Amino acid sequence: MGPRVTRRHVVQQILRGRSKEPVREQGIGRAPVNIALCKYWGKRDAELNLPRNSSLSVTLPGMEVEMRVEVSGEGRDEVVLEDNRLPQDEAAFQRVVEYLDLFRGAKGLRFRVESRSAVPPAAGLASSAAAFAALVRALDALFGWELTPRELSILARLGSGSACRSIFQGAVVWQAGRRRDGMDSFARPLNIVWPEFRMGLVLISTAEKAVGSRPGMNHTVETSPLYSRWPAVAEQDLQRMLAALEGRDMGALGGLAESNALCMHATMIAARPPLLYWEPKTVSAMKRVWAMRQEGRRVYFTIDAGPNLKLIYPVEEARVVREVFGEVREFAPLTESASCS
Amino acid sequence: MGPRVTRRHVVQQILRGRSKEPVREQGIGRAPVNIALCKYWGKRDAELNLPRNSSLSVTLPGMEVEMRVEVSGEGRDEVVLEDNRLPQDEAAFQRVVEYLDLFRGAKGLRFRVESRSAVPPAAGLASSAAAFAALVRALDALFGWELTPRELSILARLGSGSACRSIFQGAVVWQAGRRRDGMDSFARPLNIVWPEFRMGLVLISTAEKAVGSRPGMNHTVETSPLYSRWPAVAEQDLQRMLAALEGRDMGALGGLAESNALCMHATMIAARPPLLYWEPKTVSAMKRVWAMRQEGRRVYFTIDAGPNLKLIYPVEEARVVREVFGEVREFAPLTESASCS
Repeated sequence: MGPRVTRRHVVQQILRGRSKEPVREQGIGRAPVNIALCKYWGKRDAELNLPRNSSLSVTLPGMEVEMRVEVSGEGRDEVVLEDNRLPQDEAAFQRVVEYLDLFRGAKGLRFRVESRSAVPPAAGLASSAAAFAALVRALDALFGWELTPRELSILARLGSGSACRSIFQGAVVWQAGRRRDGMDSFARPLNIVWPEFRMGLVLISTAEKAVGSRPGMNHTVETSPLYSRWPAVAEQDLQRMLAALEGRDMGALGGLAESNALCMHATMIAARPPLLYWEPKTVSAMKRVWAMRQEGRRVYFTIDAGPNLKLIYPVEEARVVREVFGEVREFAPLTESASCS
Repeated sequence: MGPRVTRRHVVQQILRGRSKEPVREQGIGRAPVNIALCKYWGKRDAELNLPRNSSLSVTLPGMEVEMRVEVSGEGRDEVVLEDNRLPQDEAAFQRVVEYLDLFRGAKGLRFRVESRSAVPPAAGLASSAAAFAALVRALDALFGWELTPRELSILARLGSGSACRSIFQGAVVWQAGRRRDGMDSFARPLNIVWPEFRMGLVLISTAEKAVGSRPGMNHTVETSPLYSRWPAVAEQDLQRMLAALEGRDMGALGGLAESNALCMHATMIAARPPLLYWEPKTVSAMKRVWAMRQEGRRVYFTIDAGPNLKLIYPVEEARVVREVFGEVREFAPLTESASCS
């Protein structure tokens, strides 16, 4: 098997021969939120965030996080979210600091990280994937590494698995890879232009989850007797979704995305003790979507590890979606400008 | 593999040498509703109702169906439920008639079947298992066969799988068996006396289900990518539940029953298209149970292929169950008189 590969090994390998000193005062990076159509659910390596299955997402145009990084004059790390400095005992602070540990160099640099998000808190979107992708871009700018997108994707994955997808725009595949060091586990953009494709956010709740998606994933892998089927199901779903994307087949893609999300939730519901992210209103909204389909509407949903629905539909259904769900925050993730910037 | 075994073969084998003529005017049979703690979900033989996994249930004292059978003077079958004669084009009529086809003998007898149920329609309890068990008992009385309980259980299974459990009282195991003719697939009573054990019905809806449990089961077996894990999960759950029953361990039994039910629902949720029997209020009720457990209460639930919860708890929790859920219809299925009659 060989020795265990650590995050530090991976960073050393990627940054070999590159600058360990900042080349400018401040590095700035931006990255968008992504929503998976084929979900990432379960790790084969917890330290490297190596997944058990490949996944597919679309990014939400405009829903970006911006990160600014500079060397701290105060001799200790500072993390400032929307002008609020995080207390040192906060889990989010710890997670960022442990990530920064990978980039301090021989001098043991300390950093000031400032984050601004265009994602309204009321959007019900987890933005940690976008945050880590933006942080990697900011570090790349600060140190002048000029890494390739693939290298950025691998580094982003070390912070948050799905962050590797937020390095790109539009439809993005994260290939699981097989290597123990994860050097083959990164995202790539599909460059699919499909202007009619829409994603609409249905907000059920913005309350903080009782169980975060990371511990939820681990609990499911460890205790759900149905989980063992998931990786093969997801790989097959992904292949079919790629064909549906290629053929611009909304019925096939939407149906697969919905079934894939429900399969993921099914593995959680079967965990012991059970894990249910749905609220009563989540069920009402799902039933409303199914009723629309009974009436011939091409409207589908996906649900992440939370209570909110993300609707998937072609632009022709936008009016009826608004009629049924009221104002939904709507995105066109696969227009030419959104996909290929 | 040999030829396919039909229901007719099984009936011939069991009734060999027994009377094919009624020995009295009318046969009367009664049988109770049963609620599974380890669910029957999926068939290995659709005609013989042979299950893919063994299951465990308790019967609900007083929730009985009574069947009266006599030879019809009218030359055709009549099925009368609570004084209402079923139309010939109703599915329930067809199902009973096809079952009666197995018992007509050389004379091609036609029957009048009258059913009365002590199960209020508003209880949200499916009573077809109790109905077929009662019908078998009524036929046994009409023809004077004097079959053993095991033989009655096998014949009841031919009408409705879980009917084989309703031949007995109290805690009952249906062993899946392995034989192609199903002669080893029957129920047996465990004779567990546990006076503190309670089951409470939480009624969410009595509306007729959009998908019955029989087609729901078949759809799940055929399309759910998670189903293949179910039979092994259920067999293991059953062994653990038997140990928990033996040890009168409410926490273990309740937790296993709840997880087993959720695992069954998870296989449906992952079916394609998905199958969700829950209503929004089902989710609220589940969350209420989990909140009670957070407060140290030993209250658990099971859910059949429908929206209603059946709570499982020791008698000490009866008061707090009423406080949280209002009046629930409560049963003591494992008292001496309920288990061993």
